[in-house]
Amino acid sequence: MNYNQIFDQAIDRLHSEGRYRVFIEIMRNKGAYPNARCFHGHNGPKPITVWCSNDYLAMGQHPKVISAMEDALHDVGAGSGGTRNIGGNTHFHVQLENELADLHGKEGALLFTSGYVSNDATLSTLAKLLPGCVIFSDSLNHASMIAGIRNSGCEKRVFNHNDVVHLEQLLAAEDPETPKLIAFESVYSMDGDIAPIHAICDLAEKYNALTYIDEVHAVGMYGKRGGGISERDEAAHRIDIIEGTLGKAFGVMGGYVAADRKIIDVIRSYAPGFIFTTSLSPVLVAGVLASVRHLKESSVERDAQHANAAALKKHFRDAGLPVMESTTHIVPLMVGDPVRAKRISDILLAEYGVYVQPINFPTVPRGTERLRFTPGPAHTNEMMTELTKALVEIWDRLDLRQAA
Amino acid sequence: MNYNQIFDQAIDRLHSEGRYRVFIEIMRNKGAYPNARCFHGHNGPKPITVWCSNDYLAMGQHPKVISAMEDALHDVGAGSGGTRNIGGNTHFHVQLENELADLHGKEGALLFTSGYVSNDATLSTLAKLLPGCVIFSDSLNHASMIAGIRNSGCEKRVFNHNDVVHLEQLLAAEDPETPKLIAFESVYSMDGDIAPIHAICDLAEKYNALTYIDEVHAVGMYGKRGGGISERDEAAHRIDIIEGTLGKAFGVMGGYVAADRKIIDVIRSYAPGFIFTTSLSPVLVAGVLASVRHLKESSVERDAQHANAAALKKHFRDAGLPVMESTTHIVPLMVGDPVRAKRISDILLAEYGVYVQPINFPTVPRGTERLRFTPGPAHTNEMMTELTKALVEIWDRLDLRQAA
Repeated sequence: MNYNQIFDQAIDRLHSEGRYRVFIEIMRNKGAYPNARCFHGHNGPKPITVWCSNDYLAMGQHPKVISAMEDALHDVGAGSGGTRNIGGNTHFHVQLENELADLHGKEGALLFTSGYVSNDATLSTLAKLLPGCVIFSDSLNHASMIAGIRNSGCEKRVFNHNDVVHLEQLLAAEDPETPKLIAFESVYSMDGDIAPIHAICDLAEKYNALTYIDEVHAVGMYGKRGGGISERDEAAHRIDIIEGTLGKAFGVMGGYVAADRKIIDVIRSYAPGFIFTTSLSPVLVAGVLASVRHLKESSVERDAQHANAAALKKHFRDAGLPVMESTTHIVPLMVGDPVRAKRISDILLAEYGVYVQPINFPTVPRGTERLRFTPGPAHTNEMMTELTKALVEIWDRLDLRQAA
Repeated sequence: MNYNQIFDQAIDRLHSEGRYRVFIEIMRNKGAYPNARCFHGHNGPKPITVWCSNDYLAMGQHPKVISAMEDALHDVGAGSGGTRNIGGNTHFHVQLENELADLHGKEGALLFTSGYVSNDATLSTLAKLLPGCVIFSDSLNHASMIAGIRNSGCEKRVFNHNDVVHLEQLLAAEDPETPKLIAFESVYSMDGDIAPIHAICDLAEKYNALTYIDEVHAVGMYGKRGGGISERDEAAHRIDIIEGTLGKAFGVMGGYVAADRKIIDVIRSYAPGFIFTTSLSPVLVAGVLASVRHLKESSVERDAQHANAAALKKHFRDAGLPVMESTTHIVPLMVGDPVRAKRISDILLAEYGVYVQPINFPTVPRGTERLRFTPGPAHTNEMMTELTKALVEIWDRLDLRQAA
C-alpha cells in the first residue's frame, strides 16, 4: 500500500485533463474596486481589474459596512469564542437573524459559517428527520446542495434543469404519503438563468412537497429590498426554506436559511454543522447587518449592476464573442475546453491586467468550460470596451472564432 | 403526510429529555474579558463573568490582532468576494498558510472556513481517494470528524477512547494491503484528557496507516511555539495530517490542516467543502496571522492559562466539588443529569452573574452531563474564589453533594 503513489496519480489526472487549478494571489484596494493588486508572477504586485468577483455590488467596500465592522471590532473583539450554544451567541447574531427573517417575510432565520454549510447542514438534517424522505433535485444544483442531499442518506431523484414537466413525472411516481422535498436554486450562477419558481411551487402544493430554494446568487440583487428572485416574483411565501449567503452581494461571509419558526428550531436543534462549530465572528455579523439594512433601502447598486450586465452582454454580442444566454447579472463566455479557457485567462492576466478565472470541471460539466464575468456597479464603460477589445484580439490569436 | 407534526415531535423529544437548548445572548467587552454583557432575561444588559469561552487565551481581544484586522479592513475591505480559485485567494491567505505550515513543521497548510469543515472535508476526501480505505476512529472523536468519516462512505472501526491495545487489535484484523487512516484528537475538550500520540504513531508505522490528529483544543496553548500537543511531545513529524482551528486559542475564526505538499494539494484539488465556498474574509485571516505570530514567540498567555487551570481545579477539589480528572486547561464538573446541569447553569447566571453553559447530549454521552469551565489568563483568583463559593452554595441548595 503506497499512499504517495495514489496521491500522485490523483494530481496527475488533473494535469492530464488540463484542469489542475492554480490560484491567483490578489489583494483588492478598498475604495478602488474593481482595481486590485496581483502577486502572481514576478516583479512584485501589479495592478489588475477584477472581473470575476462575487462581491457583486462591492458592498464589501461600502463605508457603512466597513464602519460597522470597525465599531464591532473595538466593542467586542475579533472572534465569538464559542459555538452558538456555548458563549458564541452575541447580540449581533440575534439581530441579524431577525433582519434576515424580515427580508424574506419568514418567522425566523439561522446563521451558518458559510452558504455551503447552510445547504449541507439544512438539507441533510431536514431530510433525515422525515422518515423515507425523497429529495427532488435540479440537475444543475450546486455542490453544497448535492453534498447535503448525499449526506442525508435519502433517495434522490434528479430532474432535468428547470424542467417542470420532468419534475412532475418524478413527483407523480412516488407514493402520496412519502415525504418529499424539492431542492433548487433561483439564479444558476454558471449559466445565469432563473428557475420557474411559481411553477415549481404549484407542483409542490399539488404533491404535498416541501420546497427549498438556494438564492445565494440573488439575495441583495433582486427584489425591491434585495430579498432575491422569490421577492421579485412574489413567491417567497410559497417557499418553505429560503437559503442565502452573506459572502456575495452582501459582501462579507457566512450563510443562512429563513423559514417558519418550527423549521428553524428543528435545524437549530439537530444539525451537527450548525451545533458543533464556532459561530460567525461578531465583526462579520455586524458588517452584514449594515449591508442587509442598506440594501433593503437602496436600489442604486442593483440598478447599476443590471445596467452594466446588459451593457457588457451587448459589447460581447456586438463583437461576435460567444456570450451565453443569461437573463441575469452573470455574463458567461463559452469556450468548451479546459486548456483553452485557462490559456485565455492567462493571457488576459499577463498581457491585459484583466483578472477572470477559467471555470472548469467539476464546477461546470466537461466540454462547457467557460469564462464568467460579473460586472458590478463600479465597472465603467471604458473598462468594458477595453475588455472586449482584448477578448477579440485573443480570440483571433487563438483561432477561436472558427472553433466557436 | 403532515410535516409540522413530525417537526413538532422532534422538538418535543428534546423538551421531554430536558435537553432543549436555549442560547444565552451575550456581548463581550473588548479589553475587559472575561467580563461581558448579558441580554438574557429582563432589565437590559447585565454584567457577567464568562467561564465557558473557547477564546482560551483572550487573543480575540489582543491589541495586535485587533490592529491587524483594522488595517486589513481599511486596506482591502470586508469579504474575499469569492472561492479560493475565483477571486478569493488573497495575499493574506497565502501568508497564513505558510505561517501555519511552519508552526507544525510541515510543507504546506490549507485554510477552511471552520475547524468543522476542515475535519469533514479532509477526512471525507482523503478516505474517498484511497480505494477500500478503513478509518480507525477514537470513540470520543468530535462530531465533525464523525461527519467526515461518515461522509467518506468508508468502513469505520471505533477504538475505545485512548486505548492503544484495542486499536492494535483492530489494525491487526485488517489486510496489510488495505489503506488505513487513524483519526484522533490530542486534547479531548469535554474531558480534558490527552491522547498517547507516540504510541498511536508506533502502531501507525507498524501497520502502515496514515495518521490524522485534531489539535483544535491544543494549538496556541501547548508546545513552545503553540504548535499543540504534537509539538510539546515532539511528535509532529510522525503525524501525516495535523488539523487545527483559528477560532479558539487563536481567537478569531476558521480552520486548517497542515501536511506534506502532496496531501495538501490533493485536498485542495478534490475537497468540495474547500473548493465550493467563499474563502475566509481577509480581515479574519489578517487577525489570525497576527495571533499565530504572537503566540509563536510569547508564552506568557499559555503559562498564565495553565497556572489558572491548576488553581481552579484546586479550588474545586478543596471545596469537595466533583471536578473531573483532567490533565489540561479544561476544568469539567460532573453533574450527570441534563435537567440539573441546566438548573445549576440558570442559577449561576441569574443570581451570580456567572456564565457557564450546561453540556449535554449529543455533545457528551447521556448521563455524563456536566459544567465545563475554561479559565484563561485573565481570570483572577478572586473570581475563582467567588465562583467556588457560588457552586458550593448551589450544590448544597440542590442536595447534590449526596448525589455526587
